[in-house]
Amino acid sequence: MNTLTSSEELIQSMLPAIEAELEVAVSLANGNITKTLHQMLTYHLGWEGEAAGPEARGKRIRPLLLLLTCSAAGGNWQAALPASAAVELVHNFSLIHDDIQDNSPLRRGRTTLWKHWGIAQAINAGDAMFTLAHLALLRLNEHSPADIVIKAARTLQQACLNLTRGQYLDLDYETRNDITIDDYWPMVEAKTASLIATCTELGALISVTDEERCSEFRRFGLSLGLAFQVQDDLLGIWGDGILTGKSTESDLTSGKKSLPILFGLSQNGSFYNRWMQGSIKAEEVPELAKLLDSEGARSFTQGQANRLTKEALQALENSKPEGLAGQVLKEITLKLVQRES
Amino acid sequence: MNTLTSSEELIQSMLPAIEAELEVAVSLANGNITKTLHQMLTYHLGWEGEAAGPEARGKRIRPLLLLLTCSAAGGNWQAALPASAAVELVHNFSLIHDDIQDNSPLRRGRTTLWKHWGIAQAINAGDAMFTLAHLALLRLNEHSPADIVIKAARTLQQACLNLTRGQYLDLDYETRNDITIDDYWPMVEAKTASLIATCTELGALISVTDEERCSEFRRFGLSLGLAFQVQDDLLGIWGDGILTGKSTESDLTSGKKSLPILFGLSQNGSFYNRWMQGSIKAEEVPELAKLLDSEGARSFTQGQANRLTKEALQALENSKPEGLAGQVLKEITLKLVQRES
Repeated sequence: MNTLTSSEELIQSMLPAIEAELEVAVSLANGNITKTLHQMLTYHLGWEGEAAGPEARGKRIRPLLLLLTCSAAGGNWQAALPASAAVELVHNFSLIHDDIQDNSPLRRGRTTLWKHWGIAQAINAGDAMFTLAHLALLRLNEHSPADIVIKAARTLQQACLNLTRGQYLDLDYETRNDITIDDYWPMVEAKTASLIATCTELGALISVTDEERCSEFRRFGLSLGLAFQVQDDLLGIWGDGILTGKSTESDLTSGKKSLPILFGLSQNGSFYNRWMQGSIKAEEVPELAKLLDSEGARSFTQGQANRLTKEALQALENSKPEGLAGQVLKEITLKLVQRES
Repeated sequence: MNTLTSSEELIQSMLPAIEAELEVAVSLANGNITKTLHQMLTYHLGWEGEAAGPEARGKRIRPLLLLLTCSAAGGNWQAALPASAAVELVHNFSLIHDDIQDNSPLRRGRTTLWKHWGIAQAINAGDAMFTLAHLALLRLNEHSPADIVIKAARTLQQACLNLTRGQYLDLDYETRNDITIDDYWPMVEAKTASLIATCTELGALISVTDEERCSEFRRFGLSLGLAFQVQDDLLGIWGDGILTGKSTESDLTSGKKSLPILFGLSQNGSFYNRWMQGSIKAEEVPELAKLLDSEGARSFTQGQANRLTKEALQALENSKPEGLAGQVLKEITLKLVQRES
């Protein structure tokens, strides 16, 4: 076995293993009479059909975090592969249903599953992906003791429950005008950060780490997940693609209650007045983004991202990450909040 | 502890225990900020809101079968309660999503969840119910060994995967004109019988029965599930409520590819000719039901129901059911296929 010396080498050794594990997990939906169901899933995962390829697959950030944490906690990351497939499938199940709920025609530049096969089949394909996630997780018991597998299953299901609670709030907020920054945090914690916290917790759990250290790794993931979402919100208004017009979807036009928008509303100034007059058109986006910035929303949001990143790095240090994987976790944390797209 | 002597007494002792277990399972979705999500679930389960009550809850046949099998396999049915809640929640998750997929405004005479709270929230409420089912199942480990719990979790997830495969087929068949009786069986096995087979298998598994006997109990559930569906198809055309006009939904008007309809189509006679001319109106239902009967569809379907019931009873006998619960399983099997609604 070669000793990996660079972060890039370690990540590049994990990514194909994740992809292979995902393929095994998803193949359970295949069969003579359900080939098309299987095809829906492989399409959504970016393996098949229109514009398939690495760009269509996303970054696989959740399974990577899980495997890296397992290794950084002193475990063998290969033993955690079933769990890494599981978290990626849970994430993708939620995307399939999100796209229906948000009426989104595109995901990563490709036609969404529901646009392709209709709402009824897309709901069902999401359900299949959800089940495949949990079937994947149970394969942990090829290498892990039964009580750890049960703990892992419960942790993942709890994350799924949080996900649905967060999604309930997100949908509810869309139609409400009384949402504040205080309402924002429980929503993003449930909808985004909880699953990322579960990735780092599961990685530690599978390496059979003591409870205290598992909790630290979970705290790391939770802060990282929140930082990630806040950064996402920042890019949703001032991101490269948004302002240059490469991406058509600004959070300003979709009406999403993101952190900078909630901050802007709390200022009761010009942005607030414009928002209350009704939905925002694409041509207004550059000017309104500038207005929000001048009212302090950008620096507030950046400040929150920085604070959460600092908390993540502190929790990571407390969890005493080992070896190259520990180093990579630190690098990823810094990179995620410095990203521009 | 009283000794229960009649079937009715045994069932009446199980039903409140199932309801209590369901309430505990569903309460996990509750919380300060997600009260409405919890309310969607309790509404769907018939506990709250419009016309709540026993009529709105369904027969809880799946959890009953599970508990009865556990007892008939020599186990303590109380230990199986978490699994009984799990199968009922899986069933109800599938109903919530089915109602969206079928565009159904009513379920058991009440407004469907999606009609009440919109499609987006209903998809999410179904997802929450799905997760709660699996969280309920994992509570088995308060009384059962870890390896049994993992086996039970895998068995239930496999049933869920089958459910989505069956639903894929059902949705696919709706739009196709080349479906035959040969296509019917794998669809209903996956969509309906697999979950009922899982109820009886889990009941046996939790009583720590040997594998051979577990398989027999599973075979019993599978045949029973198929018989149940065939009988449902029969009632969907010649049922009491349908022909007297008490129920407005005949399978003839919904265009469902049920067994009598597929038989009728295979005869290439007058029914086939009428079917090919386009959708059937409510006022044509009595005449077309008579026509289908005269072309042999009713006696064919009844014959299949009888054959499957016989197979179920044989499998039940092979699994050597014990005590009063064993007797009740036999009675339920006979009752299910003699029911009129």
